[in-house]
Amino acid sequence: MWARREVRLAPRSRGVHLVTREIVAGVPEIADVRVGLAHLFIRHTSASLALNENASPDVRTDLEEWFGRVVPDGAPFFTHTLEGPDDMPAHVKAVIVGSSLTLPVADGRLDLGTWQGVYLCEHRDHGGPRSLTVTVHGEL
Amino acid sequence: MWARREVRLAPRSRGVHLVTREIVAGVPEIADVRVGLAHLFIRHTSASLALNENASPDVRTDLEEWFGRVVPDGAPFFTHTLEGPDDMPAHVKAVIVGSSLTLPVADGRLDLGTWQGVYLCEHRDHGGPRSLTVTVHGEL
Amino acid sequence: MWARREVRLAPRSRGVHLVTREIVAGVPEIADVRVGLAHLFIRHTSASLALNENASPDVRTDLEEWFGRVVPDGAPFFTHTLEGPDDMPAHVKAVIVGSSLTLPVADGRLDLGTWQGVYLCEHRDHGGPRSLTVTVHGEL
Repeated sequence: MWARREVRLAPRSRGVHLVTREIVAGVPEIADVRVGLAHLFIRHTSASLALNENASPDVRTDLEEWFGRVVPDGAPFFTHTLEGPDDMPAHVKAVIVGSSLTLPVADGRLDLGTWQGVYLCEHRDHGGPRSLTVTVHGEL
Repeated sequence: MWARREVRLAPRSRGVHLVTREIVAGVPEIADVRVGLAHLFIRHTSASLALNENASPDVRTDLEEWFGRVVPDGAPFFTHTLEGPDDMPAHVKAVIVGSSLTLPVADGRLDLGTWQGVYLCEHRDHGGPRSLTVTVHGEL
Repeated sequence: MWARREVRLAPRSRGVHLVTREIVAGVPEIADVRVGLAHLFIRHTSASLALNENASPDVRTDLEEWFGRVVPDGAPFFTHTLEGPDDMPAHVKAVIVGSSLTLPVADGRLDLGTWQGVYLCEHRDHGGPRSLTVTVHGEL
């Protein structure tokens, strides 16, 4: 069984956001899968997807703080600056975090660890809505 | 063909550990697959999975050394500190390394490059045992 | 449907290179898939695969520049130095960027976002040709 859905995430401020529920709500076919995988793919180059702590919001704040220190806005060695000081750092962060996640599906739900949630990492100041392509495949 | 296994990795000290054999031993269904993929997924937010050099142990030592420099324990800008100075750095490292690997399977074995092995990156001082969910699918 | 291909990428200089067309040309089976996934896997430990901006070449130049700053050649804390000052940094970069990409396939083509392209990140000064294993599976 294969299913494919476009999921459009509402615009978010720069930073790290928990979006597990929003994604699951957009992919009803997950409920049909007994054993399988879900592939989440973001169709942009300045936002990324990660999996991490779903409880304390300060983990997400600290992660954004670290990103800003290791890939500083407006770093003098960046030459790709036409789209603003947050653009090239966004590309770097998207490369190191990644554009997709593959997650196990079991008995009709995303089978994550107790503390795991899906993060949208919005690396632009004004990134706008973000489109995901979610592909689910598995056994019914 | 789909198969799903839980693999429990023995507790390890903080650092980078080669676990290819331990994982393969826990997933006998790999032997049945002619062409396919194996998805390795760690169910935790402060340890991660990577693929790299399987020979020199000093590659793993140096990688841990680099992690500690780019994401220092007890960095003053981290606010999520209740679980200790190694906790928030562990979350950051897990995000940049990643929680899963998808690996080719061919003729009944993980089809890695000659020098590639699976790394468990244990980012906590005392992380305990780590659970993986391994999903194998492919043609018999 | 499952297909598997070896794709050999021509040797490239150290840096970040757009290789989408070269990969697609080596995997004709993509054209047969209506809904599915393509798994791109690099069989080396000192080069990596990423997905990012396919237009401005300065994004790729700046990314290489950032890599060199956060993982400097010949850093004094690296002990794995027998293969040269660019070797251990190459392993670190390969771990943080990653060895594989999973990409959606739709209606016979890689279904990337408008601005997305596949990057080969060549982390060695003289890496030579690089081998990929591409696995495509999906519905016809």
